[in-house]
Amino acid sequence: MKNLLVGQSGGPTAVINGSLYGVFHEAVLCPEQIGHIYGMRNGIEGFLKGRMIDLSLTLDASSLERLKYTPGSYLGSCRCRLPDDLSDPVYAALFDLLDKQDIGYVLYIGGNDSMDTVSKLAACASKLGSDIRFVGIPKTIDNDLVLTDHTPGFGSAAKYVAAAVQEICTDAAVYDAPSVTIVEIMGRHAGWLTASAALARRYKGGNPALLYLPEIPFDQENFLNRLQEEVHRHRQVVVCVSEGLRDKEGRLLCEYELTSSTDQFGHKQLSGCSRYLAQLVRSRLGWKARAVELSVLQRCSSCHQSLTDLSEAVDAGSFGVKAALLGKTGCMVTFTRGCPYSVSYGLADVSLICNREKTVPRDWISPDGTDIGPELIDYLTPLVQGSTQVPLKDGRPDFVYLENPVLKA
Amino acid sequence: MKNLLVGQSGGPTAVINGSLYGVFHEAVLCPEQIGHIYGMRNGIEGFLKGRMIDLSLTLDASSLERLKYTPGSYLGSCRCRLPDDLSDPVYAALFDLLDKQDIGYVLYIGGNDSMDTVSKLAACASKLGSDIRFVGIPKTIDNDLVLTDHTPGFGSAAKYVAAAVQEICTDAAVYDAPSVTIVEIMGRHAGWLTASAALARRYKGGNPALLYLPEIPFDQENFLNRLQEEVHRHRQVVVCVSEGLRDKEGRLLCEYELTSSTDQFGHKQLSGCSRYLAQLVRSRLGWKARAVELSVLQRCSSCHQSLTDLSEAVDAGSFGVKAALLGKTGCMVTFTRGCPYSVSYGLADVSLICNREKTVPRDWISPDGTDIGPELIDYLTPLVQGSTQVPLKDGRPDFVYLENPVLKA
Repeated sequence: MKNLLVGQSGGPTAVINGSLYGVFHEAVLCPEQIGHIYGMRNGIEGFLKGRMIDLSLTLDASSLERLKYTPGSYLGSCRCRLPDDLSDPVYAALFDLLDKQDIGYVLYIGGNDSMDTVSKLAACASKLGSDIRFVGIPKTIDNDLVLTDHTPGFGSAAKYVAAAVQEICTDAAVYDAPSVTIVEIMGRHAGWLTASAALARRYKGGNPALLYLPEIPFDQENFLNRLQEEVHRHRQVVVCVSEGLRDKEGRLLCEYELTSSTDQFGHKQLSGCSRYLAQLVRSRLGWKARAVELSVLQRCSSCHQSLTDLSEAVDAGSFGVKAALLGKTGCMVTFTRGCPYSVSYGLADVSLICNREKTVPRDWISPDGTDIGPELIDYLTPLVQGSTQVPLKDGRPDFVYLENPVLKA
Repeated sequence: MKNLLVGQSGGPTAVINGSLYGVFHEAVLCPEQIGHIYGMRNGIEGFLKGRMIDLSLTLDASSLERLKYTPGSYLGSCRCRLPDDLSDPVYAALFDLLDKQDIGYVLYIGGNDSMDTVSKLAACASKLGSDIRFVGIPKTIDNDLVLTDHTPGFGSAAKYVAAAVQEICTDAAVYDAPSVTIVEIMGRHAGWLTASAALARRYKGGNPALLYLPEIPFDQENFLNRLQEEVHRHRQVVVCVSEGLRDKEGRLLCEYELTSSTDQFGHKQLSGCSRYLAQLVRSRLGWKARAVELSVLQRCSSCHQSLTDLSEAVDAGSFGVKAALLGKTGCMVTFTRGCPYSVSYGLADVSLICNREKTVPRDWISPDGTDIGPELIDYLTPLVQGSTQVPLKDGRPDFVYLENPVLKA
């Protein structure tokens, strides 16, 4: 009987702990096959330093239930890229640690870079003749993993963006004067999350009036022209932009101010593209303009967890454990969508997933590049369905935190 | 039998429509004394242009219920200061409009500036011998109105800030490397809202580690020293700052970058004090530092409505109508706190409220000015109790909007 090791890696989401719950819950149900259930502290980076915990000692029934509603990464995370050269001594060190702890199954919850880790570890195991199984559980608010219909974490982030943008539109409409609000949404290369702001729209042509995704090169003059039309139509206009907008030359909009915005210490400062655009609107069109960055809350707020997303995150964790027990390795759990909406889980070769990126198809974006098409609305809508009720204590979210001492591996 | 006119003014809150609900609901219950229930579109400014609606025509039972959970100002708002000179022709025009619509009762929901409007209109009525009654319903996320224990809108904003900061602390803790997160919270002169970030703290000394309120002049070197202590203690440190922080010379921190931050159009740009401080940390201490502005969501998000706040907002609206029917005028509804926590409603002379500001008492702030004391925690805690469940439709908040045509007064 072997032990199981689970880790979290990359940026947190509202449901990444849902997948941890799924892994733990499934593993607990297999006492004949799985011994201890260990968690890496701060992903593979922490594990390499020997930092791990015994999850059975830190999670009781009450904290396990609350874990599902706790955003962030319960185990801590890392941003770590293992060397491409599988003969690098770090791999020998890692497999030594894994063998020392009698690990048979490694579940790794993360996005693109984390799947690269899974891929390399599985390849290394094969090279070394180790029978440790490595399975990836997808996680990313960016929804940019290939070979899966969507990824856990995205539905809740999309729901947060839709609700926040709807509230911002409500706020923007209270005064009578013309105004422009530019909302900046995460997504460096893929516009899925910015696209989900369209769900905030109550009627065709309503706010958010314009959406700009990073898949389409941004044209400043076209933007100003379209904005003028919209302000003449609505007076108060809300525009949603991806943080990763680039112009035709491939230059990030948020870098436009670099030459002029130098602080008193001589440092050049990257400012957000929404601030750049708001300033552009003020100076070129003379309207009141405000920039709103949704910032980290879009990935770490549990107040708009999608029940669909949370359930799928849990199921993905559970499915990953089952796959590992069946001997699968070097794979990631994938989602296939049914119609009417349902999800069936499968596995794909993780080496075909890491280091690739799924962007929004051009024909799901409107021809003029300032909105999304109905196919994308249909794609997004099921992912934000259902709500959860985060447990409260004394009026505040009752999250669960890992404060127990760390085991040394 | 006279008609009633209600308006909303100033920045929106999560429960300003709760007070509108309270006014409408109470007025509907008095069909012997109140005829039509009219709403000003965009406050006194819109009313002056003759823009009003008949609320009975726009609010049915379903939309009335959803109104309580809808943030923003259902009727639209304005930022308008009436002339100090009561013989200004605008007053004659206003009273003409009021008489033409046979208004007997004016309820005005707003903050400091709005109470100035109530005060002037009541004084003008007295001067003109009009028996129209003017009653103010308090509303502000800033909690800075005098002669009342607290104001509707603050409890929900405080709850939003506490929950958001707790989530940001969770997010900030996922990586192992030292980092500083500076959260910028609304409040130009009063630090009540920034203080409520302390409710996000799970244990003494935990994050948010430092709170800076505008009541205390900000000292940059002290800040950097305290921050170093905290980073050595916690590694990941969250600091909450009021947008209105000023140095000893009274200069706003957000103006520090003015001399250097000029955009390509030659405009000087005001940047937030959190961005200034994050840059200061990066350049002086070399740590990863991120600025997060809670921005408009802290005043317009309904996802952390406090049930206590919502109930009190409704009651304040209702109490205001009762007061007007009893012949009261030139007054604002006030809150007196009981122990254990309860609220009793009263009235105060609105001329003693407008143009004054209630800031956080010095002895409710820690001696070194980087935290709040236990009295303030005790003050804040009851205000964030209880939750509401915003009705959802298709996974998104089902708010109610005023889209009916406007009546011409």
